[in-house]
Amino acid sequence: MKVVITGGAGFLGQRLARALLQRGSLTGPSGEATPIERIVLFDVVHAEGFSDPRVETRAGDIADASVIDAIIGNDTDSVFHLAAVVSGEAEADFDKGMRVNLDGTRHLLEICRKRARPVRFVFASSTAVFGGEMPSTVPPDFELNPQTSYGTQKAISEMLVNDYSRRGFIDGRSLRLPTISVRPGKPNRAASSFASGIVREPLAGIEAECPVAPTVRMWLCSPGTVIDNFFHAHELPAASLGTNRSLNLPGISVSVAQMVADLEAVAGKEVASRVRWNRDPKIAKLVDGWPAALDARRALSLGFRVDAQFADLIRAYMEGR
Amino acid sequence: MKVVITGGAGFLGQRLARALLQRGSLTGPSGEATPIERIVLFDVVHAEGFSDPRVETRAGDIADASVIDAIIGNDTDSVFHLAAVVSGEAEADFDKGMRVNLDGTRHLLEICRKRARPVRFVFASSTAVFGGEMPSTVPPDFELNPQTSYGTQKAISEMLVNDYSRRGFIDGRSLRLPTISVRPGKPNRAASSFASGIVREPLAGIEAECPVAPTVRMWLCSPGTVIDNFFHAHELPAASLGTNRSLNLPGISVSVAQMVADLEAVAGKEVASRVRWNRDPKIAKLVDGWPAALDARRALSLGFRVDAQFADLIRAYMEGR
Repeated sequence: MKVVITGGAGFLGQRLARALLQRGSLTGPSGEATPIERIVLFDVVHAEGFSDPRVETRAGDIADASVIDAIIGNDTDSVFHLAAVVSGEAEADFDKGMRVNLDGTRHLLEICRKRARPVRFVFASSTAVFGGEMPSTVPPDFELNPQTSYGTQKAISEMLVNDYSRRGFIDGRSLRLPTISVRPGKPNRAASSFASGIVREPLAGIEAECPVAPTVRMWLCSPGTVIDNFFHAHELPAASLGTNRSLNLPGISVSVAQMVADLEAVAGKEVASRVRWNRDPKIAKLVDGWPAALDARRALSLGFRVDAQFADLIRAYMEGR
Repeated sequence: MKVVITGGAGFLGQRLARALLQRGSLTGPSGEATPIERIVLFDVVHAEGFSDPRVETRAGDIADASVIDAIIGNDTDSVFHLAAVVSGEAEADFDKGMRVNLDGTRHLLEICRKRARPVRFVFASSTAVFGGEMPSTVPPDFELNPQTSYGTQKAISEMLVNDYSRRGFIDGRSLRLPTISVRPGKPNRAASSFASGIVREPLAGIEAECPVAPTVRMWLCSPGTVIDNFFHAHELPAASLGTNRSLNLPGISVSVAQMVADLEAVAGKEVASRVRWNRDPKIAKLVDGWPAALDARRALSLGFRVDAQFADLIRAYMEGR
């Protein structure tokens, strides 16, 4: 079978590809475990560092329907749609966000619709679909009221995935990802970038600025757990999802102060002292609009995984897991 | 000031135009009551029967951005966006629904965004944004989980109206309209068309088929009340709307059996006997997916109007109100 990963040059896309290669098979169109023959990593740049002959990298603009047409072709069985302009950038450049996060998703869905058999379509949504006045734990059937353009584009994409699935055009599943921590690499323009930075940079001996107050609570998930959950979402039978293909992925709710305290407990005082509290009103406003915790019982009852505690996320990063 | 009504040749659009002409003014860009100098009625066909010199009719395709550009121009102060492919048709022709109900709304928003002062934008949404498993009365902050393509397109448009408003591109308000009863004229392809037909046709001496079970509850509003509520939505200060510009308009929850019983009480046994129960599974499935009642306290506390009882809706129709 052929699998396409959009955002395939990104951290999660690459990690997902490696996990897929290792696993070797996915539930295919027959409903049986089917060997993965090809993985196409699509992104704005070519993914690097893959030598496995099953992997093909492609670079192009997701908002160009002809590009997507060529990549999906007539032989794609499964799509993991991770490509997105991140929250901070989608807020700064509205048109770019709409083009990539909305038009890109729509092109992808339209082209998948042309396939004879419904493509399994796993979409990386976000807890940023929630916003405005929220209870301290967002209930399972709470309104989508995003307060960022990124969240709006993700919420709209979820609605499209639902309607395309209901009509049988695709077999979709949307996962509202917690903030991933600890991401390796460099800071990016996601408003949540600091949630990795305040661990990663101090561990590397570099000072890191925290743009939000210590009391702010984040809804977090480790990279390893989220990759397991991408798999799990792909493998679930459609019937288990009912009338709504969107799921709150489980996470852990941790205050930023606790994150730094855990860093100190795991790596020592000197490391933790490299966190500088320097509030950035623009970032703080975006982050304050996100839910601090979600009721994820539906996902848990469907067998999705959850991390135990933040200290484990720090250790996983330190051990390269 | 210049006011544009999309769907301006439709029943509600025309009725809204007449009410605006009679009223003569609306809150303008200055925040003060401002005389209405022009009303542009835009639709796929020209609206007929208007002799008032302030009215201009235009016909064209809302999914053609250049058409919308010409209609909005540089001088539009307020838009009432009522144009839509109705529920039954949007379900039968997915592409047409997406083109008109989604792309059309987006073109309209994009062109309004170019105006120097934010256009007041009143959007006719629908209770069809709700669906799936619902409590008997839908709570105010309940998830949007449409189970029709029409509801999906309305929900997406609401999200766009919210984000465009949050960013200051427009000053939007989305009203989730109950089913309007009793509409004059002919049946249309809305799945809810019967909710007027089972009163209108019997009163005209014609048999009417009811495609849903007598136990089905509808969420209803009279044309007069909904037109008053369009006004009210336009006049409300933006600050009163908080972080979500979408409102559940008040309605009355009535079973179809009660509707027919009220028809008998108001117009007699012979009239009511012209209703034939003939379940249409396609229509019944769409209607069953809609909420039977909504918590509309937020709208009521903002001063929106509600009808008293269904018998009044029948009488209003009989008296041409």
